[in-house]
Amino acid sequence: MHILVIGAAGMIGRKFAESLVKKPLSADHASLRLTLADVIAPDTPAGFTGHCETLTCDLTQHGAAERLLNGRPDIIYHLAAIVSGEAEADFTKGYAVNLDGTRALFETIRQVNDREGWKPRVVFASSNAVFGGDFPDIISDDYILTPQTSYGTQKAICELLLADYRRRNIFDGIGLRLPTICVRPGKPNRAASGFFSGIIREPLVGQEAILPVPDTTRHWMTSPRSAVQFLRHAATLDLSLLGERPNLSMPALSITVGEQIAALRRIAGDKAVALIRRAPDEAIARIVAGWARGFDPQRALALGFKTEQSFDEIIQAHIDDELGGRIA
Amino acid sequence: MHILVIGAAGMIGRKFAESLVKKPLSADHASLRLTLADVIAPDTPAGFTGHCETLTCDLTQHGAAERLLNGRPDIIYHLAAIVSGEAEADFTKGYAVNLDGTRALFETIRQVNDREGWKPRVVFASSNAVFGGDFPDIISDDYILTPQTSYGTQKAICELLLADYRRRNIFDGIGLRLPTICVRPGKPNRAASGFFSGIIREPLVGQEAILPVPDTTRHWMTSPRSAVQFLRHAATLDLSLLGERPNLSMPALSITVGEQIAALRRIAGDKAVALIRRAPDEAIARIVAGWARGFDPQRALALGFKTEQSFDEIIQAHIDDELGGRIA
Repeated sequence: MHILVIGAAGMIGRKFAESLVKKPLSADHASLRLTLADVIAPDTPAGFTGHCETLTCDLTQHGAAERLLNGRPDIIYHLAAIVSGEAEADFTKGYAVNLDGTRALFETIRQVNDREGWKPRVVFASSNAVFGGDFPDIISDDYILTPQTSYGTQKAICELLLADYRRRNIFDGIGLRLPTICVRPGKPNRAASGFFSGIIREPLVGQEAILPVPDTTRHWMTSPRSAVQFLRHAATLDLSLLGERPNLSMPALSITVGEQIAALRRIAGDKAVALIRRAPDEAIARIVAGWARGFDPQRALALGFKTEQSFDEIIQAHIDDELGGRIA
Repeated sequence: MHILVIGAAGMIGRKFAESLVKKPLSADHASLRLTLADVIAPDTPAGFTGHCETLTCDLTQHGAAERLLNGRPDIIYHLAAIVSGEAEADFTKGYAVNLDGTRALFETIRQVNDREGWKPRVVFASSNAVFGGDFPDIISDDYILTPQTSYGTQKAICELLLADYRRRNIFDGIGLRLPTICVRPGKPNRAASGFFSGIIREPLVGQEAILPVPDTTRHWMTSPRSAVQFLRHAATLDLSLLGERPNLSMPALSITVGEQIAALRRIAGDKAVALIRRAPDEAIARIVAGWARGFDPQRALALGFKTEQSFDEIIQAHIDDELGGRIA
């Protein structure tokens, strides 16, 4: 099986590629072949002895999609995107990468499909940012997409394109609306959502973390481990079960910051919780207030997509995967 | 007031331009200026003595949008599109006209807005074809858009673009999801929806009409007169009332073919109804089964968009507007 991962240098792309190498996806694991692409050179996953090609490639460049698809992969994971903040700051770049880049990929598949009948599976990483504005506390699978950012607009448009190309038998495909990922490993960043991870990640290594929103703030989160599992499940799922709607909201936990902190206390004690410093930030609170608080992802659950049962599990996954099982 | 109508040679575009001339939209009617554009030359509305420019113009051609916007209109009506059947038959042309043409228009407005601060009002004709697949009998304003045609996909994408450009203050705008228009004047055509008009239009002039679906078939229809009225209302509506969701399902009547025929009998008698010949067509019945049967367009109604109260009124409007008030 030949798998192409576009966006393989990102956090989820890297973890996903590592998981493909470590844990067989299918019985023909010995034949696994990887093509890993990103705008910066992705790493070959440690310990992989199979065929792995890494490509530095920008989908907005002429001919880039052709180059990516040269090896006619069986499955194409399209995880690459300009993130929300950048797509909002740079209108032209956001549309060029997130919309035109994706369309160039789909169009190139169409041309090869026309010529050769090649019909790969496309797994597209969408986002909960396709929802916005005045939505209910719990968003159902039938709820209208009304993004309030250019990033969310671009993801929603790509969902529509994916559905149409799939309907026309150009490729098979599925779109996964990824929840906020928590705990994100690595350094703190300036993403408005960064604190959801920061208030867990930093205290676990004895460092202070800033909390800019009230404890009552509710959000939709899952672990990097679950996100990787969503991508893995999409590789082998019978896509005919999707019917006419190939884009799905993924499961996650709808929890408050206060519940996050209570879980941290259970696992790492008062000492860790004391490292969370409350510094209310109106601007961040306003941005976060526009984000989805919860979903009822019945379709994804029925199709076998799974998430953690409690935020304690999410913290424990971080400790196991990133801290070698030990906390400060 | 300077109004640009793109798609002015189409049935609705033509009727709309005529109505602008006949019935003042605002107090400064004397200053009304029209730019009418289409891929074939539109007519200047009869009796108009004001400034009217007609343009033959294809939005997919380089520089076309610049040319259309040269006069910096106050309101831009974008009604132009490749119709559903053609967009399905010609994938490339459908995306080129319905998506890229619209985007070229929006992008050109953005560039002028950047340079000059010009911020027109855009009224975009969307379609009920943005809904598809397994939807409920009555579709609410919050229901997800899952088009099952390339035409519907293109319209749904343009709705998202319109909302994002509006949110970013590039233009003000509103998207109107037009119902099926009945009774369409003119000759029978081969559109799958043609019979909804044909079974009224032809018998009223003593001609036979074919009915390819069962009498129980339910659909969402309004008159050309109401469609024109939607466009007129969108010219002066306070768009801040749209909040974060500028795309609206328009009101119409949810009625069955049997109810259409009963209304025809009340107005034109058994003699007219006898001209309807039942010729079941599985293919057409299957296409029609995928179309929306009814909506609960609360937002549009609250904003003052209106439709007829009964199908009798719709037939009477056709008799008044197209047949000089007389039936055969």
